[in-house]
Amino acid sequence: LDFFFNPRSLAVIGASTTPGKAGFIILKNLLKFGYKGEIYPVNPKGGEVLGLKFYHHISEVPKPVDLAVVVIPRNLVVDAVKECCEAGVRRFIIPAAGFSDDGEEGKLLEKRLVEVASRYGARVMGPNSIGTVNVSSGLVTSFVNLEKPGQGPASLVGQTGLFASAFIQWITSSQNFGLSKVACIGNKCDVDESDVLSYYADDDETGCIGIYLEAVKDGRRFRNAALKALRAGKPVVVVKAGVTEEGAKAASSHTGGLTGNFKVFEGLAKQTGMIIVEDFDQLFTALKSFSFLPTPRGDKLCIITQTGAGGVLSLDVYKRYGLRLARLSEETVRKMRRVFPDWSPVGNPVDMWAAIERSGPDETFSVLINAAMRDPSVDMLLVISVLFKGADFNPSIVVDALDRWGKPLTVCFLGGESLMVNEWSARLEKGGVPTFTSMRDAMLALSVLNKHRLNMLRLRSLQAANPTKQ
Amino acid sequence: LDFFFNPRSLAVIGASTTPGKAGFIILKNLLKFGYKGEIYPVNPKGGEVLGLKFYHHISEVPKPVDLAVVVIPRNLVVDAVKECCEAGVRRFIIPAAGFSDDGEEGKLLEKRLVEVASRYGARVMGPNSIGTVNVSSGLVTSFVNLEKPGQGPASLVGQTGLFASAFIQWITSSQNFGLSKVACIGNKCDVDESDVLSYYADDDETGCIGIYLEAVKDGRRFRNAALKALRAGKPVVVVKAGVTEEGAKAASSHTGGLTGNFKVFEGLAKQTGMIIVEDFDQLFTALKSFSFLPTPRGDKLCIITQTGAGGVLSLDVYKRYGLRLARLSEETVRKMRRVFPDWSPVGNPVDMWAAIERSGPDETFSVLINAAMRDPSVDMLLVISVLFKGADFNPSIVVDALDRWGKPLTVCFLGGESLMVNEWSARLEKGGVPTFTSMRDAMLALSVLNKHRLNMLRLRSLQAANPTKQ
Repeated sequence: LDFFFNPRSLAVIGASTTPGKAGFIILKNLLKFGYKGEIYPVNPKGGEVLGLKFYHHISEVPKPVDLAVVVIPRNLVVDAVKECCEAGVRRFIIPAAGFSDDGEEGKLLEKRLVEVASRYGARVMGPNSIGTVNVSSGLVTSFVNLEKPGQGPASLVGQTGLFASAFIQWITSSQNFGLSKVACIGNKCDVDESDVLSYYADDDETGCIGIYLEAVKDGRRFRNAALKALRAGKPVVVVKAGVTEEGAKAASSHTGGLTGNFKVFEGLAKQTGMIIVEDFDQLFTALKSFSFLPTPRGDKLCIITQTGAGGVLSLDVYKRYGLRLARLSEETVRKMRRVFPDWSPVGNPVDMWAAIERSGPDETFSVLINAAMRDPSVDMLLVISVLFKGADFNPSIVVDALDRWGKPLTVCFLGGESLMVNEWSARLEKGGVPTFTSMRDAMLALSVLNKHRLNMLRLRSLQAANPTKQ
Repeated sequence: LDFFFNPRSLAVIGASTTPGKAGFIILKNLLKFGYKGEIYPVNPKGGEVLGLKFYHHISEVPKPVDLAVVVIPRNLVVDAVKECCEAGVRRFIIPAAGFSDDGEEGKLLEKRLVEVASRYGARVMGPNSIGTVNVSSGLVTSFVNLEKPGQGPASLVGQTGLFASAFIQWITSSQNFGLSKVACIGNKCDVDESDVLSYYADDDETGCIGIYLEAVKDGRRFRNAALKALRAGKPVVVVKAGVTEEGAKAASSHTGGLTGNFKVFEGLAKQTGMIIVEDFDQLFTALKSFSFLPTPRGDKLCIITQTGAGGVLSLDVYKRYGLRLARLSEETVRKMRRVFPDWSPVGNPVDMWAAIERSGPDETFSVLINAAMRDPSVDMLLVISVLFKGADFNPSIVVDALDRWGKPLTVCFLGGESLMVNEWSARLEKGGVPTFTSMRDAMLALSVLNKHRLNMLRLRSLQAANPTKQ
């Protein structure tokens, strides 16, 4: 699949000189992303735009083409793919919808497309696919105007164009985590989730993987690809649509596949260590966490909170996220006591309010967070902050503690003046500390790290039991 | 309780001339909020600040004092309250902690406080209470720097200072809904959740009520207050802490009460129509919805979505939120077809992508949303938008549809460029359409409206069955 992410040259079949048209936006995105390969726009009418000269036909392109994006109406797609194949192209991305997602006629059209491609040994992503993004090579085939996101370990694959459009825009404009690769596989007439997952498992730039799935095309292959990712130590987080009967029916008309039974999928996920989440927002919470934080050594949580209510509510939910409450060592409690008034109790959750009043926020944050992080009975730390002037802390205290002790740590902000929360959040996340404004999201972020730890443990014990089996 | 929200005069016992001190910030907040009554700062050292002259002692204040905020260390509180009582004050807010929230010594102190107050027939809010806010009268007793929030129908009461500090800051700086009243009841040695809930039930400015509860002091009184709110047609949304044993233990050390069994509380909530949510973010989602939207006539949902994945995922969850999927009338489908290409199916969810490509976003949004809203088989509408240039819509189309048809309508944004999403969100919310960036939040917003509808129906059928019983 490497040509889908690292093509040395790319043809845009249906290139356009009209701003706003798909065949124009793709060219513009490629230039903005700094795509390093050759770009060959193709349009029978010829033309030139953005400094790129159009070819009238794929056969006129003077050099080998590793990948073609075919941005033309569905009825013209099959012939165009055939002509490209004859010109030696073997990788295609097909954005047009109206194939197996759209009745009998569409199904026939998709069948013809597959026939043509397989005759030439070509691989097709789509139809109904907005294509791929590779931040490091600058490849982008999306026809939605994008700015280049930051580079990060998270790679995405899914049956939705959102990944290569609105979600990239959202990440680029408001998030502090980056991306490695994106593949929108659409109707997946050929390239499917198993292919891409397997590719990501091998890809050195990919550290964690997010999947949106409506249907699994081949359960056995998917299982193998997921296990391969796990063996590579890469967490796989999945949003599975079609959980209910109605959802399944809708999925089928969206991208033309059968979703199968959700219980079966849950079994598959358990077996292969995939982490199922409910929705896109949870997917990105998990990926942010995996992008920023190390795997914990255990499941024991310490909670340090600026508000009593935060401590009480977090105690109500931590178990649901599969975590245990750390029992702080006597030494840790002794260290923490230094910043508290004499009368104040110190437990877990650590309610820091009295300490802030006595010792000020910076001294309090520094002493409490470092004491908790160095305690061997603490595996991860949740800091609940109520940010207002007078009780605000120096974010570098938290960043330094993460660097120094190497244990997962998140900060949850409850309320507060929004500009201030945004500023603190940016400073923390730029230092590698993920932040959230919902306690459940902050818990989820820690919980998925712990799930990955358990998955890796299970894998190792299986490998130890069956040393011959890979 | 009216003097806790509408005092004609307020004494600040422990007023301070030092910026940053609690006794200074209260005065500053009062001036910023435009408090309409008289302010009497009291400090034995005298002084003057912000144009306010300090009195050396409460007995020097020349006019009757409706409410005193006693911002002094815990050991001085009881004597100060006594002196105020002797000077004729009968309402007190006590911010100091270290009473029943802190061991035997504190419990004794609180007992003495209650004794003194009851001797004079005085009412006390607190201790451990950051006090009250009333947006319309400009009253604010919080010692955290605040800007005045907008006026809205939502009133809050809870055992957390967050409501009168970080959450007001958050609402004022980033939200488009406003507040009516806030009461932080702390250890509730006297004034408790039942008192305030009952007051809010009668309060003309309060339209919906949010509660954060650790312990219920008196189940019977609380039940009656909740029923009173329901009879007044006001939804009551509750975050109940201490759901688990550990949470309950922590709640007890936070504000000194016993949380009781959560199952019992759930029963009470069901009986009185209180809506339980999990956390503060869900509480504010619900209050935003109640602040903006009317009660639906039924539970049948129409989903109009710019992304197929959004449609599929929303079908997976709507049932969990107690909603049903509307079956669009033939007339509605016919009206909708006008903006779609011939081949495109029209169902519920309405996947609008093909229509946007054919008819443009504004025509598509206008035709689809108005067709759905006028359909008698549709009770509420969820619009899932993927906002990017070229597929963006005029927000006033959505606002006008809400005004015209008067059915609940929310917009959920999936991804998109953040400045653009923020701008659209502000324009929609200023027009009364609540927006969300998580599909589950958008569903929750509609679901609580439906729950309130069912509660009102149940109340009416009970009243019909027992016409004599109020």
